[in-house]
Amino acid sequence: MIAMKLKLALCQMKVETDKLKNLQTAAQLAQQAAQSGAQLICLPEMFCCPYDNACFADYAETMDGEIVHSLAEIARQAGCVLIGGSFPEREGGKLYNTSPAFSSKGNLLGRHRKLHLFDIDVEGGVRFQESDVLTAGNSCTLIDTEYGKIGVAICFDVRFPELFRTMALRGADLVFLPGAFNPTTGPAHWELTLRARALDNQLFVAACAPALDPDASYHSYGHSLVADPWGRVVRQLDDRPGILLVTIDLKEVERVRRELPLLAARRPELYGCESD
Amino acid sequence: MIAMKLKLALCQMKVETDKLKNLQTAAQLAQQAAQSGAQLICLPEMFCCPYDNACFADYAETMDGEIVHSLAEIARQAGCVLIGGSFPEREGGKLYNTSPAFSSKGNLLGRHRKLHLFDIDVEGGVRFQESDVLTAGNSCTLIDTEYGKIGVAICFDVRFPELFRTMALRGADLVFLPGAFNPTTGPAHWELTLRARALDNQLFVAACAPALDPDASYHSYGHSLVADPWGRVVRQLDDRPGILLVTIDLKEVERVRRELPLLAARRPELYGCESD
Repeated sequence: MIAMKLKLALCQMKVETDKLKNLQTAAQLAQQAAQSGAQLICLPEMFCCPYDNACFADYAETMDGEIVHSLAEIARQAGCVLIGGSFPEREGGKLYNTSPAFSSKGNLLGRHRKLHLFDIDVEGGVRFQESDVLTAGNSCTLIDTEYGKIGVAICFDVRFPELFRTMALRGADLVFLPGAFNPTTGPAHWELTLRARALDNQLFVAACAPALDPDASYHSYGHSLVADPWGRVVRQLDDRPGILLVTIDLKEVERVRRELPLLAARRPELYGCESD
Repeated sequence: MIAMKLKLALCQMKVETDKLKNLQTAAQLAQQAAQSGAQLICLPEMFCCPYDNACFADYAETMDGEIVHSLAEIARQAGCVLIGGSFPEREGGKLYNTSPAFSSKGNLLGRHRKLHLFDIDVEGGVRFQESDVLTAGNSCTLIDTEYGKIGVAICFDVRFPELFRTMALRGADLVFLPGAFNPTTGPAHWELTLRARALDNQLFVAACAPALDPDASYHSYGHSLVADPWGRVVRQLDDRPGILLVTIDLKEVERVRRELPLLAARRPELYGCESD
């Protein structure tokens, strides 16, 4: 990482059925965050499309479509690095849950395609089968930004400690996670899992969710939060719309890794979890 | 796993300087746990030796010494599977932090040598360098018991998600962790880390610590607990001596893994964390 103190903004917006309106909301929130001094802005998972298997194909665009062009313009106008939440990306007849990242000049820096699709069926709770319509990506994503290397993962990806370990070992001190847990898994697992990823890998995790919309078919848990390398929640929203602004100090990563040297103490030759 | 409902007992005993007295306390608590219906009993890390680098060599014994023989007898008399906490094991001029496991007949089933030594130096907090006197073990440990396959890890081993993943993939539905966090890392990380290991791997974790002794050089956090496959704390002690009795139902492992299929959804070909 180059800069040490960074101001992050997580825009916990309510997602409407109108794609254009969602892009406008994202632009307004990004502008507001920039005026508050934010340097890196993150939008929620599926920020411009209802989180619903029935919607993904209709709202899908290529990487050359209106959504990505609008996000580039949002980043440029805000003058901020932008993690563009995620949107349904169409390529070669397939749909992906994709998060594009932009420089403060509005250049596309890279994209993350969700690696672990959200297939869950909890008795008396939530049921969702992303794999009915989406295809999973095929690589762990690190983005080189003007503020250093950042990791990006999407929602269910957070369930897999190996992915966060890989990002940490490849140099990420900060991971953004556009995500949308729900009333079943949110209270039970959202904060626990995000804090554990931050603590185990001794890095910052910034997770941005849509606000709750009681009228939507999928109820987002909200609760966008930033967790620090000691496993603490720095700040957290509730389920209402809002911008979470947090200044992080990346020196904390170095300090915690020196005091409690976990990454250096790994014994990968013994685990064998990759080959089993 | 063969049995489905299992009664576990975690004996959170206060460790004295008198080795024999500690063995007697362990025997009494195991007897008491057995009378309460326990089937598997776990003792704390270094249950018979003060947790202090200055003590390990003096208290050390081979696997053929009085400690292991006493533990075998404790298991036999209680009629319970016994995870014998840990003790300083001497072999070939080296010392290990070793947890032996016994059948309810008192047969030695296996042992775990701590894989990750506790080397930590937190500013204004705890400092400890186990590697000054101890040698680390060299393998992930699963024990075949009359109640099925269980994993065993010791204290700082819990910091490494890869180890727990490996145990889960090799068939452990239940992991015992003799451990001794402290007033710095205990409140910050003990419950968080144990719950995360249980949730991520969808298994039961049973962690047994010594009770707090304010006169000891190392202050144990206590708080022995059992966490379930949904990431909940089933029950937890405070820092005083006591026996934690919990009945777990291993059907929960199967149910949670069906509703939220995490192990099956891993994409090990993408992580690369083993090779980086």
